[in-house]
Amino acid sequence: MGDLFLALMHHPVVDRNGRIVTSMITSLDLHDIARSAHTYDVKRAYIVHPIPEQREFATTVIDHWRFDFGRAFDGRRREALEIVKIVDTLDDAIADASEVNGKRPLIVHTSARTSGGTTTAELRAKMEGQDAPPMMILFGTGFGMAPSVLERADIVLHAILGPGDYNHLSVRAAVSIILDRLRGR
Amino acid sequence: MGDLFLALMHHPVVDRNGRIVTSMITSLDLHDIARSAHTYDVKRAYIVHPIPEQREFATTVIDHWRFDFGRAFDGRRREALEIVKIVDTLDDAIADASEVNGKRPLIVHTSARTSGGTTTAELRAKMEGQDAPPMMILFGTGFGMAPSVLERADIVLHAILGPGDYNHLSVRAAVSIILDRLRGR
Repeated sequence: MGDLFLALMHHPVVDRNGRIVTSMITSLDLHDIARSAHTYDVKRAYIVHPIPEQREFATTVIDHWRFDFGRAFDGRRREALEIVKIVDTLDDAIADASEVNGKRPLIVHTSARTSGGTTTAELRAKMEGQDAPPMMILFGTGFGMAPSVLERADIVLHAILGPGDYNHLSVRAAVSIILDRLRGR
Repeated sequence: MGDLFLALMHHPVVDRNGRIVTSMITSLDLHDIARSAHTYDVKRAYIVHPIPEQREFATTVIDHWRFDFGRAFDGRRREALEIVKIVDTLDDAIADASEVNGKRPLIVHTSARTSGGTTTAELRAKMEGQDAPPMMILFGTGFGMAPSVLERADIVLHAILGPGDYNHLSVRAAVSIILDRLRGR
């Protein structure tokens, strides 16, 4: 099976009015996404943020669990957070993943608004094929990634759907569901 | 398809040492779980807590989004929170769901520690069958539901697994994944 990476994008994302903004890192995103990512054997989960103070905040959250209170409180959470890496840009995430794997990962775009595109079942089959390439799945915070991120994608994933038309999942839920569809047993 | 309900249990749950405790309600659980539940057409999501002050806290969070800031900020979030109902006990949740559906729901137990039991694929088939009964899925906060809750269950669901042995998902992730497995397209 090809290596799997994910990147949680905080810029460029859109707000509810479609304006391009930079969203804040939340500590719960780090925890939930690290735990889901580690459960589904994601090699590295990149937290992508252009602002140094935000990256420092994320580092503080993780170090708290790696070295202090958290280590004693819950070793499984520390273990999950060890796959989190905080980077400035998507290019940095891609460069790091390329170094880890030896090959450049294919970039997979996700959005609640995509109709058409590759289904999770098709992507799973591709990932389980012989000599499957490494993949990096991008997730947008805020109200989703800015349209320009789409240009970076090799694969565009179909939106997750329930029985009806409403699909307003949190990014934490979207990450969990997509990882489960790709790698769940 | 049979009606689906869920109950987020805050008592009796266990802490990391296996002691029976009552966990706190977190506002993010309300939001994430309401959004996932509404995406997968859950009829009602019950927040079960025995302490009045905690139930009042949850009501305040929901009312904030129903009436004030939230209504203007994001109508989709308000819509999701409308399926949330705050109750004292599991029995209250079951009584309310029985009134909504006309039949008493089958109680489905979930845990990260269950091996054996019904798979999500088997439960999905059962839910999609002719004259499928209503179901209520129980999720534990903290470090999971106390063993006594198991006695209430009609169906015990197999733990969610990724490729490896680590499965330390947040309750928010577990809710999303199980709903997607049961009702995703």
